[in-house]
Amino acid sequence: MIIYGDAQSGNCYKIKLLASLLDIDYAWKEVDILSGGTHTAEFLARNPNGKIPLLELDDGRCLAESNAILNYLARGTPLLPTDPYEGALVLQWQFFEQYSHEPYIAVARFINKYLGMPEERRDEYHAKQVGGHRALAVMEVQLRDTPFIAGQAITIADISLYAYTHVAHEGGFDLSAYPAIVDWLGRVSSQPRHVPMG
Amino acid sequence: MIIYGDAQSGNCYKIKLLASLLDIDYAWKEVDILSGGTHTAEFLARNPNGKIPLLELDDGRCLAESNAILNYLARGTPLLPTDPYEGALVLQWQFFEQYSHEPYIAVARFINKYLGMPEERRDEYHAKQVGGHRALAVMEVQLRDTPFIAGQAITIADISLYAYTHVAHEGGFDLSAYPAIVDWLGRVSSQPRHVPMG
Repeated sequence: MIIYGDAQSGNCYKIKLLASLLDIDYAWKEVDILSGGTHTAEFLARNPNGKIPLLELDDGRCLAESNAILNYLARGTPLLPTDPYEGALVLQWQFFEQYSHEPYIAVARFINKYLGMPEERRDEYHAKQVGGHRALAVMEVQLRDTPFIAGQAITIADISLYAYTHVAHEGGFDLSAYPAIVDWLGRVSSQPRHVPMG
Repeated sequence: MIIYGDAQSGNCYKIKLLASLLDIDYAWKEVDILSGGTHTAEFLARNPNGKIPLLELDDGRCLAESNAILNYLARGTPLLPTDPYEGALVLQWQFFEQYSHEPYIAVARFINKYLGMPEERRDEYHAKQVGGHRALAVMEVQLRDTPFIAGQAITIADISLYAYTHVAHEGGFDLSAYPAIVDWLGRVSSQPRHVPMG
């Protein structure tokens, strides 16, 4: 199988981290977003939405959306509970990540780190801080109660949220106000076969 | 089970529509977002993220995020394929809906229909049109190939995307440029036990 991704993208890192934790073999094809690599005719034929990461199976079928890929690859492993409610709770946190967390924390990081904070996006950057802190506060409440985001054991929901939370400082977020999140980041990064981003 | 929702919200309508298609019994508790119903202490105890819809099971456990709720309720029914790749494709389209569709089409509708297009959100409304049309174009490409969004049969991914697409005109989107979407809306609305929004 092939993963099309950008090594600096948190959404792509989710797949790289899961594949390492589960010791899954894959080929990585680097795609440069900033130079238009997701909008070539060849790439759009695989994903009409023009986004990475993208998984291509050996038979040529493709799957987009980082969290859908995590669910596909983790099926049947301890990282994805088989209990219906527990599995749905994993999805709850993954949809939270894509709607209430990533659009603030990842986008603030993108504006700051990749675009170099251009003047015309400074207001947007500041607006993103509010939503980002709101998401972090929700995570903090949960992680005061349970060691991992969906309960007692690590799941792919932790991988989803770890991806951009562990680099939130690159988007201007100071995590020292969130001690339960800081402890949780340590629990995720100390998993056997953990790999860093990049 | 109890569904906390707002009858005018597309995210809440997803659950109402699925429950009707599957003939699932539930109690509906109306929550008014505009008057702060999702931010009372009582509601936040059930969902710290302060959003509807919210599912409360008979044993008191709660589940948030519309698409997570759909996956939970549809498990074991024809609306959620058991094949791993097909199930992941359903998730792909649901994550697409929450990241690339809802933030544009639902938010434009909200600004126009619920807020009455206040002057200070007019620029945002116009910016939302671009992303909304981009999402509709991706759906159109898929629906030219397959009768339903994830393939040959209706799934919960269709319910997810139907919710805000069928009222996209309330957000200023003219669907006549998307004939495959218009045909698909008709296929979804003619399902046995289909119920309208509201």
